[in-house]
Amino acid sequence: MISRRAAAALLAAGGLLLPRAARSLAGPEPAPPPDGRPVRVAMLLFPGMTALDVIGPQALLSGLAPGSLHLVAASAGPVASDTGVSLVATTGFAGCPDALDLLMVPGGDGTPAQMRDAATLGFLRERAARARWVASVCTGSLILGAAGLLRGYRATSHWCVRDRVLPLLGAVPVAERVVFDRDRATAAGVSAGLDLALALAARLRGEDYARTAQLVAEYAPAPPFRAGTPEAAGPAVTQAATDILATLAAESEAAARGLAAP
Amino acid sequence: MISRRAAAALLAAGGLLLPRAARSLAGPEPAPPPDGRPVRVAMLLFPGMTALDVIGPQALLSGLAPGSLHLVAASAGPVASDTGVSLVATTGFAGCPDALDLLMVPGGDGTPAQMRDAATLGFLRERAARARWVASVCTGSLILGAAGLLRGYRATSHWCVRDRVLPLLGAVPVAERVVFDRDRATAAGVSAGLDLALALAARLRGEDYARTAQLVAEYAPAPPFRAGTPEAAGPAVTQAATDILATLAAESEAAARGLAAP
Repeated sequence: MISRRAAAALLAAGGLLLPRAARSLAGPEPAPPPDGRPVRVAMLLFPGMTALDVIGPQALLSGLAPGSLHLVAASAGPVASDTGVSLVATTGFAGCPDALDLLMVPGGDGTPAQMRDAATLGFLRERAARARWVASVCTGSLILGAAGLLRGYRATSHWCVRDRVLPLLGAVPVAERVVFDRDRATAAGVSAGLDLALALAARLRGEDYARTAQLVAEYAPAPPFRAGTPEAAGPAVTQAATDILATLAAESEAAARGLAAP
Repeated sequence: MISRRAAAALLAAGGLLLPRAARSLAGPEPAPPPDGRPVRVAMLLFPGMTALDVIGPQALLSGLAPGSLHLVAASAGPVASDTGVSLVATTGFAGCPDALDLLMVPGGDGTPAQMRDAATLGFLRERAARARWVASVCTGSLILGAAGLLRGYRATSHWCVRDRVLPLLGAVPVAERVVFDRDRATAAGVSAGLDLALALAARLRGEDYARTAQLVAEYAPAPPFRAGTPEAAGPAVTQAATDILATLAAESEAAARGLAAP
């Protein structure tokens, strides 16, 4: 069996596995950080984030970042998610370390406001320029895109906005659950952050670490239904979900169009 | 295809699908709550909980409990998880509604302390006696067990303690990802809470609701590795994970044995 790292190297070299027109864009993936020091991770929190976009990856990555996984918001303290639960930011923007191995952005109903928030976008641009990996979960890719960080990159997002909004931000939408392009890594909606985190953990600390984190979290998923994609869910359920997500999708599109305006 | 509800009814009737000696213990599952009112949910928070045990189910259940999903700790305010991230309890024990449709308990490194905590165990016993469903994720089943709430019930837990500790608490360990027995529902380690939540959502509000929540969360899991169970992970990774979990497993066993002592 081809190892994931070998596959990544093949992809990075523009090998046969890399699909479509993106092949010409591909450059190498970042090297892993030096062994023997904790990995430096910052995860953005913002009002109206989806808590699972943060906590899924956090659960799988915290072991490689002991004392160096920062939950960063405009200021330290509780931040309310889009379903009411509040997560506590450990630091404000100013206190976040400059040099990061991983900068990760969640999505959620608060996405459109963040796409227009100068302080958030400035923070992301500044830290992304020095980060080893820049990643997102769900509509977090739209925030990265609004910061200009996905121009020319293959990327994914929640299905409700992927093909509709990513192109407005200069990204190339890809209908996959996890998309790697050079030092950018984006995940599809919400729960895809778990799969992204394992793929990143393997790149940051090797496959053995990733597999161990997977076993500690007993991540052998077995959903009782097949309804996690529009194709699997069928038209009636997809319509119900689309209705729930309509405001988020429309406001995200409006925010993206507003950025493009003079 | 047999519907999930029909399957549940068959099981509840002691039908052919119910395995092993547990068949004689089976009674009916609870009826769903009346349509038209929000479902009443309380999720326990405690120091050293695993945040994903809470946030996974919370993400999938919050839509059916608008304004009625309570995060309950000894007192309201931030509660630190076993990996540093803090979740904010919305109410203390005293403020938690008396009549609940679902009482859910997470696990985590703080489990052994909760197994000995009189206030937590008292709260759980009192609310469980009136709750429609009593559920747990990961080692949360050991806390339910310490409260005497799993005696004679089939149940699961994190693989590192399932067969070793559940029997000490009078439960019948079952090596399945999600286990339903009458009004008790238990999940295996950490990420199994997502699968449990969908199964509970279907029982609380029907399959269409569950499928819609699954699609909104884009829960079509595709982990990059097969390492979510000891069998899949193999001996080396299982040993690494067992080492990480050794203190939790040993202290949980000690707590269970302490409860049995005079």
